[in-house]
Amino acid sequence: MRTADNYADSPRRAGHAHTSVRRRAADPAHPAAGSRESEIRLRVLEAASKLVDRLSYDEVTIDAVARASGVSKSTLYRHWPSRQILVLEAFTYKTNLLTHVEDTGDVRRDLHSYLVALTRCLDEGQTASTVSNLLAEAIRSTGFSRLYRQTLLRERRQGFLAILQQGQRRGQIRNDADLEVVVDAMYGAIYHRLVATGEDIDAPFLRQLNGFVMLGCATPAYLEPQKKFS
Amino acid sequence: MRTADNYADSPRRAGHAHTSVRRRAADPAHPAAGSRESEIRLRVLEAASKLVDRLSYDEVTIDAVARASGVSKSTLYRHWPSRQILVLEAFTYKTNLLTHVEDTGDVRRDLHSYLVALTRCLDEGQTASTVSNLLAEAIRSTGFSRLYRQTLLRERRQGFLAILQQGQRRGQIRNDADLEVVVDAMYGAIYHRLVATGEDIDAPFLRQLNGFVMLGCATPAYLEPQKKFS
Repeated sequence: MRTADNYADSPRRAGHAHTSVRRRAADPAHPAAGSRESEIRLRVLEAASKLVDRLSYDEVTIDAVARASGVSKSTLYRHWPSRQILVLEAFTYKTNLLTHVEDTGDVRRDLHSYLVALTRCLDEGQTASTVSNLLAEAIRSTGFSRLYRQTLLRERRQGFLAILQQGQRRGQIRNDADLEVVVDAMYGAIYHRLVATGEDIDAPFLRQLNGFVMLGCATPAYLEPQKKFS
Repeated sequence: MRTADNYADSPRRAGHAHTSVRRRAADPAHPAAGSRESEIRLRVLEAASKLVDRLSYDEVTIDAVARASGVSKSTLYRHWPSRQILVLEAFTYKTNLLTHVEDTGDVRRDLHSYLVALTRCLDEGQTASTVSNLLAEAIRSTGFSRLYRQTLLRERRQGFLAILQQGQRRGQIRNDADLEVVVDAMYGAIYHRLVATGEDIDAPFLRQLNGFVMLGCATPAYLEPQKKFS
């Protein structure tokens, strides 16, 4: 599968988790820095997320992460009860670093940046297969599904929502738009291609998707001047 | 999960496969009637689709289908190499019977009927879990993914597309709309709720989704008079 990767305007802000989410203690999507425990967690997530880029889903084993991070298997199992959970948290951690909620003043541009950064995260090595397999695990296991919703899914949905809410505050997105449904459609369309049709998630697709979403939820005042330039 | 099931305007046309799809010989999504072989296939698919309504995904075994259909296991294996493939074809067969591309003259109404019929198919017993698990199988296996795309996915996407194309011919859907992307978003949104968020696929959701899609791809001429009545 090919994903959009030829954009100059999408930031890669390693070191920045996106800022719209309030941190909670022991929040698996946002490991806190500071304590010795936290340092181990961060070191492991760093090492595991690099493995996720290089290896297939099945190859990212606890053994492989132990070797790559220099952390013992018993310590890994103390923090992560299964390799599936470790891969989920590592991929969430990595995607949090690489996606960022922009505030350029223009909702279409902010959404575009986010879509490009998000799909770029699917474009490294075998990452797309890892993401698909995490969803398959969530389908097969209720316990894993709960974690999946608390980490990867929540993070990405909140990113989309934050951008749309910014747009609402600027008068660019309709106040009567059901933003949850808009996120279902945007995020759902990307996953539909990723896991069901296998069609390319490329630049033309992201542009069409963004245009469709704008027509579906932007205000006439926002859409009107754009028509003149299109 | 709750799905929309309190509509009076959605037809259940058992006996009708939807009509927009040209039949092909040995097309797993449209078993032909007539020959002795075909009769066995139809009898099995009927029996298996009833089991899919009642049982969980893992319970619909070749043994169970053999008992319910009165067809021997060896014959079943001759037609369907695995129980996963049999369940996939049975669910596709059943959904084909229960969903129908309407032509009321109004694209919003046609889409609404289709969405309601489609989600009603998820609302019987443990069907939602079966559909999710079929997707999980497609993610885990390339061979199964190919069959999944040739049957269930193709059928539903063609249903949505046929309705949108009808709308285009009537001047209700924009000619410059990318209908494939519109289907990604609609179908993707439903699957996103089904397999990822677990949120209800209920009447308010379908109404919001349809409204969003109409704004996203309908013509100004079609949208304008509707505003007066909203």
